[in-house]
Parts: sequence; structure tokens; C-alpha cells
Amino acid sequence: MESFIEFHSKSSGIYLSVKNILYKKKTKYQEILVFENEFFGRVLALDNLIMTTTKDEFIYHEMLSHVPMKSHPNPKSILIIGGGDGGTLREVLKYPIDKAYLVEIDEEVINVSKIFFPELSKSFDDKRVKVIIMDAIEWVKKNNEKFDVVLIDSTDPIGIAEGLISEKFLQNVKKLMNDISVICIQSESPFYHLEILEKIYKTFKNVFSNAYVYTAPIPTYPGGYWSFTISFLGLNAPEIRNQYIIENLKFYNDEIHKSCFSLPQFLKERIYGAN
Amino acid sequence: MESFIEFHSKSSGIYLSVKNILYKKKTKYQEILVFENEFFGRVLALDNLIMTTTKDEFIYHEMLSHVPMKSHPNPKSILIIGGGDGGTLREVLKYPIDKAYLVEIDEEVINVSKIFFPELSKSFDDKRVKVIIMDAIEWVKKNNEKFDVVLIDSTDPIGIAEGLISEKFLQNVKKLMNDISVICIQSESPFYHLEILEKIYKTFKNVFSNAYVYTAPIPTYPGGYWSFTISFLGLNAPEIRNQYIIENLKFYNDEIHKSCFSLPQFLKERIYGAN
Repeated sequence: MESFIEFHSKSSGIYLSVKNILYKKKTKYQEILVFENEFFGRVLALDNLIMTTTKDEFIYHEMLSHVPMKSHPNPKSILIIGGGDGGTLREVLKYPIDKAYLVEIDEEVINVSKIFFPELSKSFDDKRVKVIIMDAIEWVKKNNEKFDVVLIDSTDPIGIAEGLISEKFLQNVKKLMNDISVICIQSESPFYHLEILEKIYKTFKNVFSNAYVYTAPIPTYPGGYWSFTISFLGLNAPEIRNQYIIENLKFYNDEIHKSCFSLPQFLKERIYGAN
Repeated sequence: MESFIEFHSKSSGIYLSVKNILYKKKTKYQEILVFENEFFGRVLALDNLIMTTTKDEFIYHEMLSHVPMKSHPNPKSILIIGGGDGGTLREVLKYPIDKAYLVEIDEEVINVSKIFFPELSKSFDDKRVKVIIMDAIEWVKKNNEKFDVVLIDSTDPIGIAEGLISEKFLQNVKKLMNDISVICIQSESPFYHLEILEKIYKTFKNVFSNAYVYTAPIPTYPGGYWSFTISFLGLNAPEIRNQYIIENLKFYNDEIHKSCFSLPQFLKERIYGAN
């Protein structure tokens, strides 16, 4: 194997040359691949879809974490669904939180991250963290602790992650959310997966009564352009609501928080149906 | 040839399958290639770098045109340097302008666009348009008409387009600009070409006293994320300054105009040196 192509459609994709393969294993849930690329550094792929790379992981993890975290007046308890690489966990731990639960279905993703992505997985050592290896769909039915911020950091919602965007699952998640709380999910590429994004938006709006879409450029994801969908309980509008100063961020800042909700016309019309 | 890879670095790039090659020719200046791809439609590549595709050309052309056009109180005379495919021209002609000059070095790009990209090149039929086939570096020395808006729509500023970001050239362009006027240039990928972007920003700031960088996601350009640099004479800050209503845009809108200047932290620090 000298090169890796992730197809985004049948006829287009991203090309990466493979310097060397560091790990390859088929688990019960998916195929995990870690390889080295000269430009992007270490690359983690699940079922041949790039999940994260050393070079650009900061964008996805900062944008999935800080927009919801800064939208809450005082986030103390965090639930991450998926996120086995530890990157999202690392970001939420930058706040003075009390606890962060991470519910990951595939323990091997965590193990692999601990070996090959220490800058992400170092977060697992923090005392505030509790890791639960379980299918989140089952876990949310049984758990009765509540959370201020819920982050759904899943693979593409086809295959094993499909259930994470169902109304039934989200209704169960809602029962675990405090009266004032925020939920956010990665919602795919506006260029390649507009139907999935639209479906996620509508489901969120249905379940949580409100929903907003924001975007960020992520070079190793399809189209280099990614979306996130966020909803609120007991709050409205995605304002900055706490003054915690998080240092050393490379992507997120207050201006980005405000501007990331401005959608291109084609997306605005499709999602909000407005002009 | 069954596939096309544009390398963005030695080890990464975009992969497109080639349904069929429509045109391939080496001109005096560059190699022109037009092929069909199932997802992106028709693709125009110059020296193997993707310039435009049927599917995503609206983003680049709208963002290069409307941000500067809407920043001017009443743009009447437009100069486009490069832009032989006609896409930028099409956008500026949506305003009630008096004249649009297009100075393109390679006539064959215009010819090819007229055959294979009619939705872009239809703009050449407009009576307000004057096409000049000439090296812009020579043309700006001789011309003495003045313009409200100058758009530099060039290939990557290495090779034939390198002179278009030199201080000497930009000083000559400045002489052709009205007391109240705007100049804008495509300034490459913030992920892949940060040094070129920084150089363009500094040169613009030097020549025009002010400069601002804005960005847009463009799936077929390196990193899927592109930058533009804009400067003003007799104006400051990139505000919306006219109320012309341009209908049927697919990317640009007023919110995008305001938000596209918000830069991610790594870029903000690199360009403006601020926190």
C-alpha cells in the first residue's frame, strides 16, 4: 500500500501517500487504520474514512467543543458520545468542569489513540474523566445522571453510528440533559452530505425545539468543509455565555463563534428555508 | 488517463476520476486541460491545477466579485486581470456598471471557456465588456483609464502569474484606480500556502496602506479552504456600501460578507499578529 484514497463520491476524493502503516486491525465494529503521511502527520481512519490527523485535528475538536461549551453559562458536567480518540475530551477539560463522561462503543479506538495519538489521548488520564465502553444507545436508556453539555462525536451516521441520529435515541439523550443545557453533533459535509445534514437538523429541531447549523473548514474531511448542528434547552440562540478564557487555541475565537453560524446562501435556503 | 490527481503537497492532493477528456493543449503559456468528472461536472485545469469546475465555480466567482463590489459605494468601472474563463466577469455584470475590462494573457483560455463553459463565458457577449489579450504587467504601464474595482483573478502566483503580486505591478495598478476604489486578489490556501498569503497581505498593505483577508470554503482548491486579500483607496474597512440587490446568488449574502473576515486564530495571529 503506497497510497490511500478516501472516496467522497464515486468519482472524487482525497489522496494521501502512505509513508508507513503503523496499525491495521478489524475489530468487532470497524477496521482501524493508522498511517503516517508526510503532510498531515499521523492519520486515523475507521472503515477507510479519515477521522483525524495530527495536523488538522485541532479544527474539528475545537469547533465541536468550544462553540457548545462557550454557549452554556457555566458548563460543569459533560457527556461525550463516541470521541474515542480523546480530542474532544481534551478540549472540554480546558474548562473548570466537574466531570466528563465518554461513552465509546469500540475500546480499541481508545487503545490505538493512547499509542499513536498521545496529544489527543492524554486527556484520558484526567481525574474528572469516566470512560464507559458501551453502545451509547443502550447506555442512555439506563443512565440517570444529568449533563450540561452533550457532544456527539461519532463516525459518519451510516453503519454503526446510524442510531445516534434517530429521534428515539435523541429523546433518550434529552432525558439526561439539565434544564439549561446544550447538545451538539458533527453533521457531515454541506457539499457531499446535504441530505444527512438536513435530516439531522430537522430531527434536532423536532426533539429539542430549536436547532442551528454552523460550519468550519477541515481539509481532510469531504469537500474540506464541515457542519455541526447545535440545540439548546432553557436557552435560545448560540451566544457566548461564559467568560472562561481558554488559551492556546488555534482555530476557535470569539469572532469565529459569532461568524460560524452565517451560512452560504445555498445552505441557508436548504436548512432554514429563508432568503 | 482514467484519473486525475492534483498534488497539494508532495504527499497529498485531490483525486478525481476522468469520465472523458474534452480538450488538451499546450499553449505558449500553459497546458490547458478540460475533462468531465461525474461529481464536479466539467473541470478546467491549467498546468494540472484545477481552476474551476461546473459544480463549485459559483463559490470562488461570487466571493472574488461580490465582497469587493458590495464594498464600493457605487461601482461603475471594473478591471479584471486574468479571469479568462469569464466567471468573475459574469458576476460583476450583475451590477449596473458602465464597463468591465478583462486583461487575459492567454486567449486560448477564453476560447476554451466559450466552448466548454458557456455558463461562465456567456458574459463575454455583454456590450459593456472589453477584452484585452495581453500580459497585464505590460498593459497597466500603458493604459490610462481609471477603475472603481480591480479584481486579480489569476492562476497561482508562481510561474506566469508571479509578477501579479509584485509591488512594482501593484503600484502601476494603483495609478489606474479612482480616488475611491477597491482592489481584491485571490490569495491561495491558508493551509497550504500560508507564506504566499502572508506575502500578498504584506505587499497589499504596503502599496494600498490597508489590507484585509477573508476566506471561503472551495472543495476543489487545496485544503478546500481559500483566501482573498482586499484593499481600499479612500475607504476603510470592508463594509457593505451599496444596496444593489443581486438575485440568485448561491454562496454570497450579507451575513457571509460580514462573517468571512473573521479569521481562525492561527490565521489571525499570522496575518494581523494579534490575539
